[in-house]
Amino acid sequence: MATQPIHLPEDRYLDPDPATRKVAWHLYQRVRDLPLLCTHGHVDPRMFADPDYSFGTPTQLILIPDHYIFRMLYSQGVPLEKLAIPRRDGGPTETDHRAAWQVFADHYHLFRGTPTGAWLAHEFREVFGVQQRLSAETAQAVYDQIAERLATPEFRPRRLFERFNIEVMSTTDPAHSRLEHHQSLQRSGWKGRIIPTFRPDGVVNLDAPGWRRNLDLLSEASGTAVDSYPALIRALENRRAYFRSLGAVATDHAAVTPYTEELTPQEADSVFGRALRGEATPEDATRFTGHMLMESARMSIEDGLVMQLHPGSFRNHNPDLFAKFGPDMGADIPVATEYTRNLRPLLSKYGNDTRLTLILFMLDESALARELAPLAGHYPALRLGPPWWFHDSINGMTRFRQRVSETAGLYNTVGFNDDTRAFPSIPARHDLARRVDANWLAGLVARGIVALDEAEEMMHACAYDLAEAAYKLG
Amino acid sequence: MATQPIHLPEDRYLDPDPATRKVAWHLYQRVRDLPLLCTHGHVDPRMFADPDYSFGTPTQLILIPDHYIFRMLYSQGVPLEKLAIPRRDGGPTETDHRAAWQVFADHYHLFRGTPTGAWLAHEFREVFGVQQRLSAETAQAVYDQIAERLATPEFRPRRLFERFNIEVMSTTDPAHSRLEHHQSLQRSGWKGRIIPTFRPDGVVNLDAPGWRRNLDLLSEASGTAVDSYPALIRALENRRAYFRSLGAVATDHAAVTPYTEELTPQEADSVFGRALRGEATPEDATRFTGHMLMESARMSIEDGLVMQLHPGSFRNHNPDLFAKFGPDMGADIPVATEYTRNLRPLLSKYGNDTRLTLILFMLDESALARELAPLAGHYPALRLGPPWWFHDSINGMTRFRQRVSETAGLYNTVGFNDDTRAFPSIPARHDLARRVDANWLAGLVARGIVALDEAEEMMHACAYDLAEAAYKLG
Amino acid sequence: MATQPIHLPEDRYLDPDPATRKVAWHLYQRVRDLPLLCTHGHVDPRMFADPDYSFGTPTQLILIPDHYIFRMLYSQGVPLEKLAIPRRDGGPTETDHRAAWQVFADHYHLFRGTPTGAWLAHEFREVFGVQQRLSAETAQAVYDQIAERLATPEFRPRRLFERFNIEVMSTTDPAHSRLEHHQSLQRSGWKGRIIPTFRPDGVVNLDAPGWRRNLDLLSEASGTAVDSYPALIRALENRRAYFRSLGAVATDHAAVTPYTEELTPQEADSVFGRALRGEATPEDATRFTGHMLMESARMSIEDGLVMQLHPGSFRNHNPDLFAKFGPDMGADIPVATEYTRNLRPLLSKYGNDTRLTLILFMLDESALARELAPLAGHYPALRLGPPWWFHDSINGMTRFRQRVSETAGLYNTVGFNDDTRAFPSIPARHDLARRVDANWLAGLVARGIVALDEAEEMMHACAYDLAEAAYKLG
Repeated sequence: MATQPIHLPEDRYLDPDPATRKVAWHLYQRVRDLPLLCTHGHVDPRMFADPDYSFGTPTQLILIPDHYIFRMLYSQGVPLEKLAIPRRDGGPTETDHRAAWQVFADHYHLFRGTPTGAWLAHEFREVFGVQQRLSAETAQAVYDQIAERLATPEFRPRRLFERFNIEVMSTTDPAHSRLEHHQSLQRSGWKGRIIPTFRPDGVVNLDAPGWRRNLDLLSEASGTAVDSYPALIRALENRRAYFRSLGAVATDHAAVTPYTEELTPQEADSVFGRALRGEATPEDATRFTGHMLMESARMSIEDGLVMQLHPGSFRNHNPDLFAKFGPDMGADIPVATEYTRNLRPLLSKYGNDTRLTLILFMLDESALARELAPLAGHYPALRLGPPWWFHDSINGMTRFRQRVSETAGLYNTVGFNDDTRAFPSIPARHDLARRVDANWLAGLVARGIVALDEAEEMMHACAYDLAEAAYKLG
Repeated sequence: MATQPIHLPEDRYLDPDPATRKVAWHLYQRVRDLPLLCTHGHVDPRMFADPDYSFGTPTQLILIPDHYIFRMLYSQGVPLEKLAIPRRDGGPTETDHRAAWQVFADHYHLFRGTPTGAWLAHEFREVFGVQQRLSAETAQAVYDQIAERLATPEFRPRRLFERFNIEVMSTTDPAHSRLEHHQSLQRSGWKGRIIPTFRPDGVVNLDAPGWRRNLDLLSEASGTAVDSYPALIRALENRRAYFRSLGAVATDHAAVTPYTEELTPQEADSVFGRALRGEATPEDATRFTGHMLMESARMSIEDGLVMQLHPGSFRNHNPDLFAKFGPDMGADIPVATEYTRNLRPLLSKYGNDTRLTLILFMLDESALARELAPLAGHYPALRLGPPWWFHDSINGMTRFRQRVSETAGLYNTVGFNDDTRAFPSIPARHDLARRVDANWLAGLVARGIVALDEAEEMMHACAYDLAEAAYKLG
Repeated sequence: MATQPIHLPEDRYLDPDPATRKVAWHLYQRVRDLPLLCTHGHVDPRMFADPDYSFGTPTQLILIPDHYIFRMLYSQGVPLEKLAIPRRDGGPTETDHRAAWQVFADHYHLFRGTPTGAWLAHEFREVFGVQQRLSAETAQAVYDQIAERLATPEFRPRRLFERFNIEVMSTTDPAHSRLEHHQSLQRSGWKGRIIPTFRPDGVVNLDAPGWRRNLDLLSEASGTAVDSYPALIRALENRRAYFRSLGAVATDHAAVTPYTEELTPQEADSVFGRALRGEATPEDATRFTGHMLMESARMSIEDGLVMQLHPGSFRNHNPDLFAKFGPDMGADIPVATEYTRNLRPLLSKYGNDTRLTLILFMLDESALARELAPLAGHYPALRLGPPWWFHDSINGMTRFRQRVSETAGLYNTVGFNDDTRAFPSIPARHDLARRVDANWLAGLVARGIVALDEAEEMMHACAYDLAEAAYKLG
């Protein structure tokens, strides 16, 4: 096939109906240049703390850290070793980054119609100035162009951060983190606002990989020997205060289910004691996680940190792959998730408290119209996070709006999260989300459901106001 | 913001594609003036029995009884006390109805894109003649206009009933009801057809709040001391006959799950005995409810009452709110609902009997294409009720048609239910449903799936014929 | 009503938006005449083995074998006896095929907006040359026209097979089948490629109806007395080799759930022993089926047969109907289906093996975006089958693409299956699927998601390449 230009029409992702598209374009134009609020993500803060940080090769920057990309090739039989993915078991892997890039390019058609395909097209052309579509033929030329750009000062992380018009960017950090990069950033005098997020899963989920070691790290960081449940609570409170001192506005929690249950302090202490002795049962782990979600809500009411909950992922589904490559390799698979009954203990105790903001995420869309929208349309403390992970896509975001908005309204949602490790994909992700929201709102206008002035306000809310308010960034 | 007119375009809710919209408009025009069959609802019959009934203030008419409205404000942190919602625990609440209305108006943007917003726009403009959109600025002027209308004789309930072109309206009444308002209506000579619906949940669900007292009321009403299972059956049969004598055509049943199981008379009697002694277990309650659903089907086959089943709501999810304000406060949250296995005992015994009409409702859309459409597309006794509660919306009704019609066809559905307590919202609800159905059918025409003459017949069926046939109103 | 022509516009099922429709039409034109790969179906091979085979009456050909049709009439109260459906209990049934056809025609409006309605319209007009829409009035005339065509040599099965442009057609055959029709076909010199599919459910599902007899038939066919678990494995391997010798490329497996578990050979043998003695428990059956799915995957890796898994149907839900008419009467109802945890044992052991192709089907659409797309977007051995049974419809196929493609991409799917017993409906089914895929792809083009050249390749993949590759037909 002849070389093709990157396909990225100016009015992409908008409804083909001319009347709807016109309104969508109008709405999108009003927000396309608003600053980005990156309220939830996984970018490494080190790249900003170190003024000389270099992204490495195109393969290092784009392919190796992005499990959205390499899992798709893996699903079609491409071994991860061929993609230069490092093995944690020390086994051999491709070291020629051009060769790995070629394999990626050879399979680029797999991304047709996927969000990764859309993000890459935007990133290649708008961030790196590449014009040709990636393919077997263009692989090395595209590699050269990106490598050349990466060698220039304009492509240092801080310069891109400014060019991307990021107003604030949250990282995600374990409870024991010393946040040394956030500290250096604060000291550096650079204006970029990069703030930590407190994620205590590694110590409050008793079955977390490396739990024991995480606890030691927490003890060290907090200066509290975490040898009992009260000590754990003290250490967590200590760390939350430290995170807040470096600008944190939120916590983040993952669990297989959103099960909540309040244990008595005695019960909590005896479960924690069993865990310390290596005797905790799976039921102990479930109950303790459920209890610690309630404790986190209590702490949030006291210190004002917004609480985020991401349930429903069965992590590391593929044991052989996990043994060879570790976590975050594209082998986390969602499961059906129940919210109504699981969250009742927490919501009964804290759901009516307007000092709490609990943002719920989901990987099970069947819960959206059934459970999540009715819950968020009732409890003052609840908000719904944007469609997460697999659902962070044109259809996924459209379904989210269609299933949530009629019951919960727009104003019980919190704007967009890019949730990414792939720093140069951030503009692509926000731009796509703004287009999809513009398109949804244009559909409401074109069908006479809301007036244009209302849609304009809703558009601004989607792109900026809702995130600013929910995450208390104002 | 400047005052805006109410946004209610003539061709609202129709597809923006011009060809589709044209067909949709054509279909809608054919049914827009058909009389309304209000086959399932919760309007208080007293307002029609009393010729001098007055609706009270705009706040009393529109805000206080409508949990769709006040739960949305509550979800954004507005205390119900500020909305003049009465507390059952005797706590203080706003008594100035104008002040409560102002709070409602201040938050009116929350209803953008919601069915409540669409219904209110219609109700304000088409029923009350208000022209300006409700807002902080227009709140008191709108209040004045509505209050003025309510003071006129044209706004007495019977006059509105006639103006709304309601052919029949079903109320929902507990098994023990004396139906005194229905009786006075019959005696009054007024032509409006308002009929009761027999809802026995309060006595057949052993865990219903106030079960014991309900039983006493049933004993009194039926003249049968309900001190055993056979007496319960006799009392229910007695009341069904009484309801039928006042025009009832249907029964209504709610349960957390549609679980059915046939107990032997001995088992039923001993479970009922335990309940009378206050010793029933949760399992007893589940089994007894499941058994009584089967008994209700048996009675329906004998007396011809259409049976409606509304499962899947976890009632009173918020205990503090329940303690303060009681039930129906917007805190009923759906749960995932299984139909295939749960209904098998009932359907095995009665599903092939064409004398039975069992209308199933749902709050779990994932069951629509998976379970409900295949069940309704097979069993002669089954029909599917319209999308209920949270799903009674533009997207909800559209998804219902898209998920049900290909497997069950149109003719295993039963038209629209307004299911409302808010009497003046009835025209808005039927009008919206007719527009959504017109739009769905126009999509079938525009894509060449059905011919126009077929769509015209289907349109009439959606707006009138299906409800008339399913509820035996002809 | 006056007689109407069959409604079958040339550009049917395409989006009404003119720009989208134009692209859809272009894409459809590129594949409309490609040969059909009928990779999964239930057509009786006897009709091709016997050169003199006649289809019988229109009622015998179209109505009696098609539970999609007669279940819809049954759901509206038409007894199956009136439709000439044979009773297995020997009870009386209509014998006048014209009378049965009249009843079918009287209720033809029930199929408005259903896939059956679309297929019948195509079949009547394009296969049989009928012009008038079936109705009470046209019933006998249409019957005459079809009967007349069926009497001509052009309507012998082999001639239709050629006219339909079928390149390969898979049948579905029990493990014990002698495949005598496939053998005669091979010997006959006729060029049509009709190949068997190995379906061992009757012997590996211990609770299959007639299990004991199926086992005897397997013993006979394989020449191995299946009196132990090792003998069962030997017999199955023997039959798989035999099926492969007659062209088989695939196996097929049904189960209520996709539960998998590896038993030790000792456990497997003792469960099988209990089954032989009539002592197997329901749990034994579940575990054995789960184990045999793993064994089938192991055999597939060894012999190259593609493995298909169809879970999630509660068979024979209506016991009275089953007693009178037997299985496949429209009374199989789907249940919610869990894949993530159930398939983990199988995928942990074989999911990374590129020699295995496991094609998963579903009747529970809520699993598509949640579980199936993430699984298929990761494991090299997995592919997703097309929407099955109730979901093999315009909306069902559209939802499938919208829910699967963004996460799994197009290339982890396997094209279309007609999955039918109704041979003359095959062109209608493939044509409809090609139109729906063209429409989906046109939507991607019209919204700027993929370029036209990409859509053209994807279109060819949907219509031909994916099925050819997945089923190893090249």
